[in-house]
Amino acid sequence: MARQLYELVGTDPARRFSPFCWRSRMALAHKGLDADVIPWRFTENSRLAALGGKTVPILLDGEATLTDSWDIALHLERSYPTAPALFQGLPETYRFIGAWADMVLHPALAKLIVSDIVPLLGPSDAAYFIESREKRFGMPLAQVTAGREARLPEFRALLAPLRRVLGTQPFLGGATPDYADYTVLGGFMWARSVSPLRLLEAGDDLHAWRERMLDLFGGLARGAPALEA
Amino acid sequence: MARQLYELVGTDPARRFSPFCWRSRMALAHKGLDADVIPWRFTENSRLAALGGKTVPILLDGEATLTDSWDIALHLERSYPTAPALFQGLPETYRFIGAWADMVLHPALAKLIVSDIVPLLGPSDAAYFIESREKRFGMPLAQVTAGREARLPEFRALLAPLRRVLGTQPFLGGATPDYADYTVLGGFMWARSVSPLRLLEAGDDLHAWRERMLDLFGGLARGAPALEA
Repeated sequence: MARQLYELVGTDPARRFSPFCWRSRMALAHKGLDADVIPWRFTENSRLAALGGKTVPILLDGEATLTDSWDIALHLERSYPTAPALFQGLPETYRFIGAWADMVLHPALAKLIVSDIVPLLGPSDAAYFIESREKRFGMPLAQVTAGREARLPEFRALLAPLRRVLGTQPFLGGATPDYADYTVLGGFMWARSVSPLRLLEAGDDLHAWRERMLDLFGGLARGAPALEA
Repeated sequence: MARQLYELVGTDPARRFSPFCWRSRMALAHKGLDADVIPWRFTENSRLAALGGKTVPILLDGEATLTDSWDIALHLERSYPTAPALFQGLPETYRFIGAWADMVLHPALAKLIVSDIVPLLGPSDAAYFIESREKRFGMPLAQVTAGREARLPEFRALLAPLRRVLGTQPFLGGATPDYADYTVLGGFMWARSVSPLRLLEAGDDLHAWRERMLDLFGGLARGAPALEA
């Protein structure tokens, strides 16, 4: 059986917008591996439960089923040791940037783009998404993202630690990209896939880094359906 | 000549409170190396200029002079390769947590403790410190730290990414501490050395981590002069 990666989509199965799925998709490409896209939508919980998972990405690779992006990365590193290393050292030392992406970058992005996701979803997914996210934010989603252009400077300031690193080296991984880069790129791919908002200014070292990331692996990320102008 | 580490002090040469000096002091201990403390005070610029540096720490190690904590860490790793590794992988991948500590943790700490530093300094150092920091903050230092107890929850929330990692593994370096841990500990040692403010609550995974860090190397950090209750 071909390798399969379950990835979140809306009505368009080509527009894969989960930040966590992007981590795994880039990790596969880093290892030189392909995987069939298995489109998955928000309300299809039973399909994941049948695999022992609750969220995407899920990777089926031979006998192995991995139900979380971190486990997928560890699995790829262990199972394909002769392919380029995802972790240029102990994987444990990559947890901090993952936690920062999950707990700082993603919530900040959500406040800028969450309402853009709704029109990309079919009716039942949209209903689920609106209800669950309005509960999380405690307000209508249009209100969450209201005035977002004015909040972009604050968002960009939050990225200062990334910007400092990427002002001194081309990738978070140093001279070459590694799983730290894919971890952070996931958030930017999420936004790029669903929102027209221009998050980064040209001239920002972080913008230049994202351009380099979009070009990797024959433009894998750049070729994905995007709404960002 | 014995190895020498220039470290920031105030009137008491035993109270070494620079977060960057603590990174180097812990890195030396990690490598099993000793270094004489060379006390340095804020207004003694000419002593550093003579060594080609502008700030502490500065390490003199045989023929080598290193004028920055990052260069010191790289030097120790390169020069003492058989001692335990400070970087469990590419040093470049440790830059993000360093940037986060410098740009998020330290500024947040400064807003809680900066006024506590003044009484620890002699007259000319205090005058320099007050003037330069009031210029940086745009207000009297007592005003910077005013109402700080009420701001502790906000400070602790900022530490969420650290807390998540340290809820799953004992050290930022994984099973054992490494330069990521010393990088973050520096900020906490700065605060502990100068301020009575209780930054972390007992029961916080981050508090437990700091306790483990204080115990390392025969209690090197725990034995340092502290004001935190």
